Amino acid sequence: MRMVDLIQKKRDGKELSSEEIGFIIEGYTKGEIPDYQVSALAMAIFFRDMTDRERADLTMAMVHSGETIDLSEIEGVKVDKHSTGGVGDTTTLVLAPLVAALGIPVAKMSGRGLGHTGGTIDKLEAISGFHVEISKEEFVKLVNEHKIAVIGQSGNLTPADKKLYALRDVTATVNSIPLIASSIMSKKIAAGADAIVLDVKTGAGAFMKSVDDAKELAQAMVRIGNNVGRKTMAVISDMSQPLGLAIGNSLEVKEAIDTLKGQGPKDLEELCFALGRQMVFLAGKAASLEEAEEKLKEVIANGKALEKFREFIANQGGDPSVVDHPEKLPQAAFLIEVPAKTDGVVAEIVADEIGTAAMLLGAGRATKESEIDLAVGLMLNKKVGDAVKAGESLVTIHANRENVQEVVDMIYANIRIADQAEAPVLIYGTVTE
Amino acid sequence: MRMVDLIQKKRDGKELSSEEIGFIIEGYTKGEIPDYQVSALAMAIFFRDMTDRERADLTMAMVHSGETIDLSEIEGVKVDKHSTGGVGDTTTLVLAPLVAALGIPVAKMSGRGLGHTGGTIDKLEAISGFHVEISKEEFVKLVNEHKIAVIGQSGNLTPADKKLYALRDVTATVNSIPLIASSIMSKKIAAGADAIVLDVKTGAGAFMKSVDDAKELAQAMVRIGNNVGRKTMAVISDMSQPLGLAIGNSLEVKEAIDTLKGQGPKDLEELCFALGRQMVFLAGKAASLEEAEEKLKEVIANGKALEKFREFIANQGGDPSVVDHPEKLPQAAFLIEVPAKTDGVVAEIVADEIGTAAMLLGAGRATKESEIDLAVGLMLNKKVGDAVKAGESLVTIHANRENVQEVVDMIYANIRIADQAEAPVLIYGTVTE
Repeated sequence: MRMVDLIQKKRDGKELSSEEIGFIIEGYTKGEIPDYQVSALAMAIFFRDMTDRERADLTMAMVHSGETIDLSEIEGVKVDKHSTGGVGDTTTLVLAPLVAALGIPVAKMSGRGLGHTGGTIDKLEAISGFHVEISKEEFVKLVNEHKIAVIGQSGNLTPADKKLYALRDVTATVNSIPLIASSIMSKKIAAGADAIVLDVKTGAGAFMKSVDDAKELAQAMVRIGNNVGRKTMAVISDMSQPLGLAIGNSLEVKEAIDTLKGQGPKDLEELCFALGRQMVFLAGKAASLEEAEEKLKEVIANGKALEKFREFIANQGGDPSVVDHPEKLPQAAFLIEVPAKTDGVVAEIVADEIGTAAMLLGAGRATKESEIDLAVGLMLNKKVGDAVKAGESLVTIHANRENVQEVVDMIYANIRIADQAEAPVLIYGTVTE
Repeated sequence: MRMVDLIQKKRDGKELSSEEIGFIIEGYTKGEIPDYQVSALAMAIFFRDMTDRERADLTMAMVHSGETIDLSEIEGVKVDKHSTGGVGDTTTLVLAPLVAALGIPVAKMSGRGLGHTGGTIDKLEAISGFHVEISKEEFVKLVNEHKIAVIGQSGNLTPADKKLYALRDVTATVNSIPLIASSIMSKKIAAGADAIVLDVKTGAGAFMKSVDDAKELAQAMVRIGNNVGRKTMAVISDMSQPLGLAIGNSLEVKEAIDTLKGQGPKDLEELCFALGRQMVFLAGKAASLEEAEEKLKEVIANGKALEKFREFIANQGGDPSVVDHPEKLPQAAFLIEVPAKTDGVVAEIVADEIGTAAMLLGAGRATKESEIDLAVGLMLNKKVGDAVKAGESLVTIHANRENVQEVVDMIYANIRIADQAEAPVLIYGTVTE
């Protein structure tokens, strides 16, 4: 088999066999196939696409390019949730204890990463004493006994995906549905998921700008999952404005606690139910999505979800009293209001720019070496569709420095007030096959 | 300027500016832009094509990536001829003395190369004493005084093209009209041509299998030439069967001599006139193509073309008496006939396979290290459309070994005899703009 012939085959619109895809991914991982051939292939895939069969094969070839996590010692269906990324997305912090409270095992492997705010681990570390440096054995024991635990990412998972993603990033081949879908799915599968719920974001703050593109990506991932024996569902959700009100690490932990108490922002709560009911259904804990949603509402109403969060925090060395005293979370030194300049209705809150403003405060990492300030961030006081009077605060800046003019300017530049506007649709649909 | 943005621009079907193309080619030649980005760009070009302006810019960027040959000391319009390659193509050996006899300067830089037979230099070296190891000064003096000289390729011409071609070869991006056209044209321009005549082959033995593809390539090259100030014309000619009758080095020299005497194979003669009249016209030695062709016929009829060949040979140390005694050329030890097995009409002579048969005899190089046997080769006794009786010789094998069964088998496998067949069209058209 020669790589040049396989590039030509794809270039000419033909389907690559399982064996051929395996040859490519194995050879690339081992360094036997050079970058310059793989980038040409990626560009050919950009133009020619891949069939469902090719996508499934590519995903599994990447899964098998490195280690895989064996969660077989954990009882029950391990359902993982993945979001394609947005601003102020607190769903993981809410959903983990929420579904665990229904007896569904949440064996979460998380990272820190770059972005507007920290990763799930950074956020949890805002809780005094909380740590994820636990052994594999302890992790499995915690999940079996308490249905919930978080561990830091480790091991050499999907090295082919890492290498291919880095190459795509510099060869203008990122934006290809089959390559994006197989990249995401390979990571989830290698991390041991039996079933997967996807939150595919759309809008200005998301990678997929249009609803149609988001649906196409969601369908691609759902099909890959189902074709390789992992039950998979997806929600298409809005990321034209940030989700919820909090953008920042401590701020989002507090928002998660509020939501587990049934007092969270409406949009965050709605999305948590939409994703959570799919998780419960796929875990086999409800016969229908409706029944699943009822069960989720029940554990919020009866306090079991909140109790599960306390238990989870305590298990990993954290102080569970933050749940009742969120003022114990790191607090910023300065609270600065950003008042509306005119009366009207909020018509736009540009998600990614507002996220960048939070990062400038220190809430997220611009580079791997950046240090995060867990206390800082932004609280939105108004969302799109809300009426506002001149002088009313649009945003409260939580900062650890007094001069935040740059951030104030960014906020004004990215919140538009008009005469009329309506709240955007939050959930554009669900994809189940 | 970032290469990834330029790849994306082309990927999305936009036009690259002159500055951007210059940046890419300069950066790639210097090793500042890596192979993996250039191969992705080449694949994007394969799908998105290039405009006439981009093609001209790419060509000139490659010309300026290395040295260029300055032929300004040579008087007159330097017209170069280029063929896209075929089997048994003796046109260069005929055309060089033919147009020189009309006072047109032929300053030929030639190579040896790989292929079914040797390059122009190999063929000329079949003439005892002939050599191309002359100084640049002697080369210029010979062309000014005698209108004809051949020198070996030297210098670092179009390094960007060499690097890009090697990359395209292993990334399935060879077959792209803008990339093929700019590659060929950059080499001709860097070698100092003022005007260029192109022989674009089509058919089973050519790179361009269909007439439409050949026309598209011819048009692309003619437009590049004219857009960068080099008058350019092209002929589309058949390469479904070998051109002429001889395939081999000595054999082709003899065939060239026959043609200069007006006794060559009809198809070779016809193509030489078609190409030669364009050369004469572009050199400004005739007011029309018709007048140019008359002049060519005249110097064949009056012996001046043949005399120019003798002069050329003598100038470069060769024995000019071969022109009258071609038996002085290296002769093979064994002549083996390949008789027809049935009566009928020759319907097909698969050009590239017959060329490979000649190479197996030793007429051409399979690798750079191979030694050529100048004496061996094949003489076709029949061409497509010719009637044949069982037992009549189809081909005479000129070999320096007795056992040529493999070659005989290849010949039988690639010459088809049918009840009826017609000679193929030789010239499918000319392209002048």
